[in-house]
Amino acid sequence: MPETKAEGVTARKSEDFDEWYTQVLIRSEVADYSPVSGCMVFRPLGYSIWEEIQKATDSRFKEAGIQNVYFPLFIPERLLKKEAEHVEGFSPEVAWVTHAGNSALEERLAIRPTSESIMYEVISRWVRSWRDLPLRLNQWNNVVRWEFRHPTPFLRTREFLWNEGHSAFATKKEAESERDQILSIYRTVTEEYMALPGYVGRKTDAEKFAGAEETYSIEHLLPDGKAIQGPDFHFDGQKFSKAFDIKFVDEEGENQFAWQNTWAITTREIGVMLAVHSDDKGVVIPPKLAPVQVVVVPIVNEESKKVVLEESQKVAKRLSSRFRTKLDDRDHLTPGRKFNEWELKGVPLRVEIGPRDLKAGQAVLVRRDTGKKRVVKADSIESEAGKDLDEMQENLLSHAAEALRRGTSEASTIEQLKEVIAAQGGIVKIPWCGRKACEDRLRSEAGGKILNIPLDQKVTHGKCASCGEPAKMTVNYGRSY
Amino acid sequence: MPETKAEGVTARKSEDFDEWYTQVLIRSEVADYSPVSGCMVFRPLGYSIWEEIQKATDSRFKEAGIQNVYFPLFIPERLLKKEAEHVEGFSPEVAWVTHAGNSALEERLAIRPTSESIMYEVISRWVRSWRDLPLRLNQWNNVVRWEFRHPTPFLRTREFLWNEGHSAFATKKEAESERDQILSIYRTVTEEYMALPGYVGRKTDAEKFAGAEETYSIEHLLPDGKAIQGPDFHFDGQKFSKAFDIKFVDEEGENQFAWQNTWAITTREIGVMLAVHSDDKGVVIPPKLAPVQVVVVPIVNEESKKVVLEESQKVAKRLSSRFRTKLDDRDHLTPGRKFNEWELKGVPLRVEIGPRDLKAGQAVLVRRDTGKKRVVKADSIESEAGKDLDEMQENLLSHAAEALRRGTSEASTIEQLKEVIAAQGGIVKIPWCGRKACEDRLRSEAGGKILNIPLDQKVTHGKCASCGEPAKMTVNYGRSY
Repeated sequence: MPETKAEGVTARKSEDFDEWYTQVLIRSEVADYSPVSGCMVFRPLGYSIWEEIQKATDSRFKEAGIQNVYFPLFIPERLLKKEAEHVEGFSPEVAWVTHAGNSALEERLAIRPTSESIMYEVISRWVRSWRDLPLRLNQWNNVVRWEFRHPTPFLRTREFLWNEGHSAFATKKEAESERDQILSIYRTVTEEYMALPGYVGRKTDAEKFAGAEETYSIEHLLPDGKAIQGPDFHFDGQKFSKAFDIKFVDEEGENQFAWQNTWAITTREIGVMLAVHSDDKGVVIPPKLAPVQVVVVPIVNEESKKVVLEESQKVAKRLSSRFRTKLDDRDHLTPGRKFNEWELKGVPLRVEIGPRDLKAGQAVLVRRDTGKKRVVKADSIESEAGKDLDEMQENLLSHAAEALRRGTSEASTIEQLKEVIAAQGGIVKIPWCGRKACEDRLRSEAGGKILNIPLDQKVTHGKCASCGEPAKMTVNYGRSY
Repeated sequence: MPETKAEGVTARKSEDFDEWYTQVLIRSEVADYSPVSGCMVFRPLGYSIWEEIQKATDSRFKEAGIQNVYFPLFIPERLLKKEAEHVEGFSPEVAWVTHAGNSALEERLAIRPTSESIMYEVISRWVRSWRDLPLRLNQWNNVVRWEFRHPTPFLRTREFLWNEGHSAFATKKEAESERDQILSIYRTVTEEYMALPGYVGRKTDAEKFAGAEETYSIEHLLPDGKAIQGPDFHFDGQKFSKAFDIKFVDEEGENQFAWQNTWAITTREIGVMLAVHSDDKGVVIPPKLAPVQVVVVPIVNEESKKVVLEESQKVAKRLSSRFRTKLDDRDHLTPGRKFNEWELKGVPLRVEIGPRDLKAGQAVLVRRDTGKKRVVKADSIESEAGKDLDEMQENLLSHAAEALRRGTSEASTIEQLKEVIAAQGGIVKIPWCGRKACEDRLRSEAGGKILNIPLDQKVTHGKCASCGEPAKMTVNYGRSY
């Protein structure tokens, strides 16, 4: 029988990203395959990361006055059809329930791919007067989009978990002003917790959410040079409120349709985060999100066993008061096997305590991101560990930001763009005239797409990379996951 | 335009329980109907109660070493069929996905009615050695059971939310010893948080979970005299581990099948809790679970407005440091309308501050459960409010316990049983010989069923209420929801 089941990662991130990505997630026990094609299993390590992301996001939603709700999993087909663009966007990927027990249903039910239609049908009964607004709701739930492309854990799964925020306001201005608040929450969660930088911007009309007036996204860059969309925010205008009759009487006694937004962060983000930070030894988890932040490993020989274990227990206990700490006192594994296992599973900080450390009143700290060892006084172990964890959290973000900078380039013509995309991928800043025809050409000829349009724009942009006419904006372009 | 949309409850709990129950949940904005038959909407008030129940339960699971996971919503039909009793129990209520987009699926997928089959298929890969055990997992998710009986918010819905705990142990003894730990967590949550007493016991073989060796339940009593099952715990023995091949090598190198348990608390419990505590003025929510625990209502006239509002803000701020507090400073509603609204919505404690209170350095506290008013020094408002909230929490439990006592009776013959059940319903303690034939007769002739068998049994039990032979146990009997 092997000492431990954990197999190391054999693929190399720099050589075969796809194989490495799957290996690292499966072998670290973050995720597993399931018997349902395209659906994954969140193992305790993976799910605990999601719980921490939820906590960080949800507490900020609540501070902002957003309230949680839960609406049904099922959407009657007739409701899904109420908003034309919405159904057109989602129906190719809808999973349909047609039978219950031995009976055929009278009307088939969609498993929610998103909940606009079921929520807004009900909300229209809740909103009567301007005093009922704003209505700012959110739910944390599962949704299903039956993608036919190759599934990848977290990054592309037929069922995924997310938050879906849905709000209704009395005025366009109020609805619009929610955008910065929500995007700022998502930036905090992605940058300060997940250590994931990204480019914020507006989607082009061709790329926006089915039913929205405007879509905003955070775009990340994967280590293989592909871009991937992170959290998003949709300004729906009055499209859904008109389709679902969400009307209210305003202060002047006039009937008005509400102005709406929706927004989401999904479990895909876990995959992006682990793809960016992890290495050939296993997953790397930012300290703020790690279910175990510090592991204490006693290094014992026969004669020192008792005293080293006692000291390790004491140190682990002290660390527990400030960090999520685990003492690994299993005696059937060598320290080396333990080191490998906790590196594979991404514990941010390892504390080693051996007989010599004991005598010297010290301990050894080893950081997961850099592998750097540091000998510290045992007396100040809490503050020293805290220092390492803080530095690691910052280091992951600055490394990821540096990778994003290195992966970002500029091109002013379609030829340059094709060259850059073919050579290194990444995100390319290009000037664009704003016309659909040019967007289509940029897509078909260079193999990527306009990811989003940064909100801060310079005054002049040179000439459109496609047509050579004066450009109206500079956009982020890239091959996208 | 009306001052507020909130309509009062017109049905009377004592006269028409069913109508009252639905009115009180809908009008208090705890729940709403949905366009999907049998599925309900959790409004913010209802969902926040579930969040608090989750928190209280989940933190105790985590302390016990149970880890959260997430498995797919879908179960391929062939997996559901692996354990014979399990599929027989659930297939009449399964919702089936047969199509995705425009394609028919090769194999239809069940929406999970419970996750044994999808989880155990995967877990069988995780367990190889005794060192991998125990495995104690839990998920908080949605499940679907397509009941064809009349749906009622919380109490009977086709989709509901729950926790499903699933564990695997190396020995029968360890598996069995988990029972008391889990039931004790559920008792803490139901009694100390929900203020809901109940009878703990083992289900008869006829009533146990499809696939389990033994089922344990907490049985509650509704105000209409019907019993209703609360949280449950199933000892599965090796039934599933044999069907799904969850095998491990024990310390002696022998192959063994794991011993398993499952357990659950569902959103039904919210309905039981609100049915038991609420009254003709609206819902009553135990302070520990109320999203708003204290509402401060300023009583103003034109001249005092400014100073009373200022004092109310100060008081609300002080209360906020210890309780979830809301200041209701809306100026288009009379205090009376506000009182009605917060009573309807079940805020446990109201603080009234008027110009006279201001002068006297006092405030008026009004408890939701008793309606009792108390004048307290403004200086000690936090401790006084805390006292009222603690007392209310205790009072709700003691009142519910008293109602359970009053609703519990004894019968020694089937004639007595029929009489009691017809006259007042409730839970009736009867002696039983343990035979299925007698259980069937008790059911068909008296219209209820054996709810469960208390764990603490006296030594002697008289004669079976059905056959008159010596009884082996005393059981809890009643009509059940």
